[in-house]
Amino acid sequence: MKIIVDAFGGDNAPLEIIKGCAQAVQQLGVDIILTGRKDTIAHVARENTVSLDHMEIVDCPDVMNMNAAGTDILRSGKNSSMAVGLQLLAKGNGDAFVTAGNSGAVTAGATFLVKRIKGVKRIAFAPVIPCKKGFFMLVDAGANVDCKPEMLKQFGIMGSIYMKRVMQVESPRVGLLNVGTEEHKGGELQHGAFALLKDSPLNFIGNVEARDVPDGVANVLVADGFSGNVFLKSFEGVSMMVLGLFKGVLTKNMKNKLAASMVLGDLKALKKRMDYNEYGGAPLLGCAKPVFKAHGSATAKTLYNALRLTKSYVEGNVPDEIAKSVAAYKQKEAEQKAGTAE
Amino acid sequence: MKIIVDAFGGDNAPLEIIKGCAQAVQQLGVDIILTGRKDTIAHVARENTVSLDHMEIVDCPDVMNMNAAGTDILRSGKNSSMAVGLQLLAKGNGDAFVTAGNSGAVTAGATFLVKRIKGVKRIAFAPVIPCKKGFFMLVDAGANVDCKPEMLKQFGIMGSIYMKRVMQVESPRVGLLNVGTEEHKGGELQHGAFALLKDSPLNFIGNVEARDVPDGVANVLVADGFSGNVFLKSFEGVSMMVLGLFKGVLTKNMKNKLAASMVLGDLKALKKRMDYNEYGGAPLLGCAKPVFKAHGSATAKTLYNALRLTKSYVEGNVPDEIAKSVAAYKQKEAEQKAGTAE
Repeated sequence: MKIIVDAFGGDNAPLEIIKGCAQAVQQLGVDIILTGRKDTIAHVARENTVSLDHMEIVDCPDVMNMNAAGTDILRSGKNSSMAVGLQLLAKGNGDAFVTAGNSGAVTAGATFLVKRIKGVKRIAFAPVIPCKKGFFMLVDAGANVDCKPEMLKQFGIMGSIYMKRVMQVESPRVGLLNVGTEEHKGGELQHGAFALLKDSPLNFIGNVEARDVPDGVANVLVADGFSGNVFLKSFEGVSMMVLGLFKGVLTKNMKNKLAASMVLGDLKALKKRMDYNEYGGAPLLGCAKPVFKAHGSATAKTLYNALRLTKSYVEGNVPDEIAKSVAAYKQKEAEQKAGTAE
Repeated sequence: MKIIVDAFGGDNAPLEIIKGCAQAVQQLGVDIILTGRKDTIAHVARENTVSLDHMEIVDCPDVMNMNAAGTDILRSGKNSSMAVGLQLLAKGNGDAFVTAGNSGAVTAGATFLVKRIKGVKRIAFAPVIPCKKGFFMLVDAGANVDCKPEMLKQFGIMGSIYMKRVMQVESPRVGLLNVGTEEHKGGELQHGAFALLKDSPLNFIGNVEARDVPDGVANVLVADGFSGNVFLKSFEGVSMMVLGLFKGVLTKNMKNKLAASMVLGDLKALKKRMDYNEYGGAPLLGCAKPVFKAHGSATAKTLYNALRLTKSYVEGNVPDEIAKSVAAYKQKEAEQKAGTAE
């Protein structure tokens, strides 16, 4: 398996990126194509004694700015390490693409350079997030600010396939993010999506309130990109705030520091559980080929985990399964229409 | 000052409600009108030796179910302690109304029984929430699932007045909840609201991401009721999750329990800071008279705090100030229109 990696994506590129790749080569047995400035990559690898075995470098001069508008990838950023990587993937020069760079840019690039799966209305940004017991996937977390019910149904289908084939969840529970659990809650979008999801063969558990999500009620949380993004960022902001407040207590004075030292190991394990870097990031569901976005602050460990998940993403034939499922829905709808017309 | 209190609203009614009222009578010098079953109130007060001094009881037979649809207050719930309390307020028999009951019902009741301030498009549910430094107010947290830009502008105006006059924030920073800080972020609703808020004399600081809210970047966070509700419930769910995980660490074994005992006082202070019951609840902004919703799980302490804030809400003439401000905007708009027409 050959995975294309944007060597210049994220806050800690390129060193942490190539370190993560080196670990993946060793432990996962994958080959890597790095995109980015060849000289810099070679120099940084030499300085830090990181092996570039099983890695090929495709030289490209530019880097997508983390704050650039997403669609810049098609214009000023078209020679960036991200755009070149996506083009290589589109041409079939690798099995998947991983970047820790600009989220908007990779979403636009996946849509316009690699293209969507036939029948899929929109590519969704779908991070896997830790909760009390295990994980859940949020689809969509911000790629699509304005959504239609049909898009939300597809988010449910795609998330369900990913959780089944990559995260080994047998019959993923799909929930719709809403302001209450009753069927009538929410606006037009939620009413429409509820009806479509209820009518689908998915394991749809109905509306889910944001406060119950951390308990792990759903394996796949379906949302429009706006409220999904609000949810994701609240999750990040609030966990950071509470962790920060606890840290304040535990470092307040000598007595508290002593107490903290007694539970240090357990606190570290907890922090690790809450740490994004442990999980790698988010697949871009609906893209014709596997594209995976690692967290912008990705370290070597994050990148390694992103590559591990990407390997399962490729092995699980996720895009093919989504294509099959979407086609089957279309077929079913056409039959129902024909049936009604008769 | 006479505050009407729904004696049968919330999970711990009527005992905790009347205990909170008794404390408010003593410490705040207010008079209370309790609505609800007179016999039960008298019995519970006697059994628990709670004084009913300075409290009058208006007997009514029914209670609004916590899970009923909001508009039931106008039909099956029209003789409930909540409806009767709101009608008393509408008739001028008291200065404000406080309930810990069904949020949807009190919003519908405030809108249709007490009515809106002239010119205000919608009543907003506006909880005050703790953050790293102090508090912020979220407007709207769920009363209005579908919003227009003009409504969001009014949410900003109303929240700003409340934070200034009740919470003593000099020049409240008003932020718009969005998926990014740049002006172009979000959908049509956010673009429209951004333009209106920017053009207003409010201290508008622009778009705010959910992850930055716990840091206290904004004193007033403006949102449509759907994403506002998602934000509020994420906030609740995630803080509870992280607190729960910490509790797990601190009670894991004898050594950890010992460490926990050393920091117990500080942890309790922290938990108190994160505790909703400390803050009382949410005013219903835009209602012609002060209506205040306490948290459903209100204890005597919550009710006391709700009454304390309600007293400032009345003393600060918040509805009058909102009415003045909304009228001034209308005047300004009319002048601009006339100017354009000339």
